[in-house]
Amino acid sequence: MKLLEERILQDGIIEDGAVLKVDSFLNHQMDVELFAEMGREWARLFAGDQVNKILTIEASGIGIACVAAQQFHVPVVFAKKNKTKNIAGDVYTSQVESFTHGRVYDIMLSKKFLLPSDRVLIIDDFLANGAALQGLIKLVRDAGATLVGAGIAIEKAFQPGGALIRSQGIRVESLARIRSMSENGIEFC
Amino acid sequence: MKLLEERILQDGIIEDGAVLKVDSFLNHQMDVELFAEMGREWARLFAGDQVNKILTIEASGIGIACVAAQQFHVPVVFAKKNKTKNIAGDVYTSQVESFTHGRVYDIMLSKKFLLPSDRVLIIDDFLANGAALQGLIKLVRDAGATLVGAGIAIEKAFQPGGALIRSQGIRVESLARIRSMSENGIEFC
Repeated sequence: MKLLEERILQDGIIEDGAVLKVDSFLNHQMDVELFAEMGREWARLFAGDQVNKILTIEASGIGIACVAAQQFHVPVVFAKKNKTKNIAGDVYTSQVESFTHGRVYDIMLSKKFLLPSDRVLIIDDFLANGAALQGLIKLVRDAGATLVGAGIAIEKAFQPGGALIRSQGIRVESLARIRSMSENGIEFC
Repeated sequence: MKLLEERILQDGIIEDGAVLKVDSFLNHQMDVELFAEMGREWARLFAGDQVNKILTIEASGIGIACVAAQQFHVPVVFAKKNKTKNIAGDVYTSQVESFTHGRVYDIMLSKKFLLPSDRVLIIDDFLANGAALQGLIKLVRDAGATLVGAGIAIEKAFQPGGALIRSQGIRVESLARIRSMSENGIEFC
């Protein structure tokens, strides 16, 4: 998606040659008009797939998923990273290894919000090693729901997550796929 | 706001007489079309206030804030609850006592996303004791930005947060204000 690629080139910052910071428009400060364009693109790509629920993970996936969901006219449900008193006992769970935070954490989702009849589109901001996405896919499988595919904002295509998940037959639509990046710049696929 | 009050009566669940669960439409599964109506109401209430940024806090505030921000045509920035490698060193911080989680945590916000020239509307899902809102207000004050007010989805008006914050001269617009609740039902102000 040209608009997102241009925005990454304009406002993305590469640190230490390997970390892409897009916190001015994607995952700390959030450009909701860009998110709406991204939502329109996913709605076009997954038109006819009868998506009736969008699944994401806190925190930075939530804004993108909610704005995108308006294009699908479906509710969003997000997997939680922390136990809370406000979540019912009956949950699907999965483990995710975070490379950003350097730890393994549990994610969970109330069983009542993911049903066998659901046709689920997963939306998230980043795909790199695929750990979060694998965790979300497990929640969908455990619920017996149908996974339509995944809509990703930025895929680091030089990391293994995208290939791994596509090799499982899962459709992954990343709006910007980075082939390589360094202090010298970013190259898209 | 009638639509939100009706939805709380229809889908809200009261547990132990004191906990209102609205996780089927507000803070776990999220009804983005309801959020859009809420955004339109805040945009009407704060019309003319030249809001140029919406501030919220992860996780459950983000979806509401992002959908609402589309009505204001402004970016959202969210305060983070956990330290992450991806956040720059230069941050505003504040402490928040969580009654839900039973602990005190730090929230933080990159200084570059809150400027003295900003006119900030805070948006969050709940107002009860006011701890999260006080923490967000401190971030705005520390940045030297102008606080236009706060837009809250559900205020538990029988808890002290709303009165405390209004007594500081801050405009708080809660779309549903609960006067009392028990196993017998919910009464709005």
